[in-house]
Amino acid sequence: MSLIEDLNWRHAVKAYDPTKKVSQEDLYKILEAARLAPTSSGLQPFKIIVVENQELKEKMVAGALNPEVMRDSSHVLVFAAWDSYSNEKIDKVYDHHTDVRDLAKGRFNSYTDMLKKLYGSQTPAEHFAHTARQTYIALGLAMAQAAESKIDSTPAEGFSNAVVDEILNLKELGLKSVSLLYLGYRDAEKDWLSTMKKVRVPMEDFIITK
Amino acid sequence: MSLIEDLNWRHAVKAYDPTKKVSQEDLYKILEAARLAPTSSGLQPFKIIVVENQELKEKMVAGALNPEVMRDSSHVLVFAAWDSYSNEKIDKVYDHHTDVRDLAKGRFNSYTDMLKKLYGSQTPAEHFAHTARQTYIALGLAMAQAAESKIDSTPAEGFSNAVVDEILNLKELGLKSVSLLYLGYRDAEKDWLSTMKKVRVPMEDFIITK
Repeated sequence: MSLIEDLNWRHAVKAYDPTKKVSQEDLYKILEAARLAPTSSGLQPFKIIVVENQELKEKMVAGALNPEVMRDSSHVLVFAAWDSYSNEKIDKVYDHHTDVRDLAKGRFNSYTDMLKKLYGSQTPAEHFAHTARQTYIALGLAMAQAAESKIDSTPAEGFSNAVVDEILNLKELGLKSVSLLYLGYRDAEKDWLSTMKKVRVPMEDFIITK
Repeated sequence: MSLIEDLNWRHAVKAYDPTKKVSQEDLYKILEAARLAPTSSGLQPFKIIVVENQELKEKMVAGALNPEVMRDSSHVLVFAAWDSYSNEKIDKVYDHHTDVRDLAKGRFNSYTDMLKKLYGSQTPAEHFAHTARQTYIALGLAMAQAAESKIDSTPAEGFSNAVVDEILNLKELGLKSVSLLYLGYRDAEKDWLSTMKKVRVPMEDFIITK
């Protein structure tokens, strides 16, 4: 199927079958699509925490808008962005770039100097506003891959960031939760959205042609 | 090709062939993938401005990090998010939902009341922080569709928001520019990134399994 067919197939599933688990192979592909997501300056300023453990999911339910989805989904992906940029983080990424590409270390210094100057002039809150945005590219591509593999998914911002950050010890990793992606297989009877038409704004209201 | 193959194929092209234009059919598919992108509560709080006009592109060059890419690409998509949420905007979206689904108007009132209360307690700056994030999901899916159609693309935050907002009269539309997506066909000789390996953080550093 094409991407557009996959996007038409998917919807934000509202109820999962707790007896069905996503295979490691399918899970890997979803994570790989997220890993391949482009990000600003290639910094990939986030990680994905993969939660399958039922006890952890029960703890994260506190403050979740859809507790049953948290409980019954097969896996919960937590998209967690860097709380800030730093010169060390930028160097680590670009040293990896030159290593992989067999280039001299420092080959991209003029670019990284510009990045360091830019982020050096910003506050951690400004950094996080930017790193958080990048996670949504990966979130979208993870959903697209899930759809290609006919895995159901539900993106969610409706949860307690404080609870999730605390349970997953994100602060000490320099991370802050941004969104969740529930993965699994729908419970077709309970998922009231399954039978409804997908609704989007008509193309003529979505674009402006200049 | 699969999504993962498409994501491995693409890169942020650094030089375009100004003589090659993206067809209307390919452009439509890219916009359709963006239109189908899921967004928070289905509000789709953004529009895409499609710029093909060379004079407009020349004006938007001011402040662009890659002026040649702006000039030589076939089309520039401007992702522009709502500057704020309002009760009217929320009602418009959900009235459309009930229309398309042949449901009674107001069927989702308990949900929209919650949204109105939530956004009513926030500032326009908080609204825009949220609407801007949503655009990145669509940006990612637009790039994926471009790759599926073997159209080159370059996502960009490196431009002057003030210049672009002014030239496209976004303020009076209640919109603010967030990112650009350049589309076209690479100039393989000038695009220095074409021959370099794609670099991403290794999977073991990208995920944390719980």
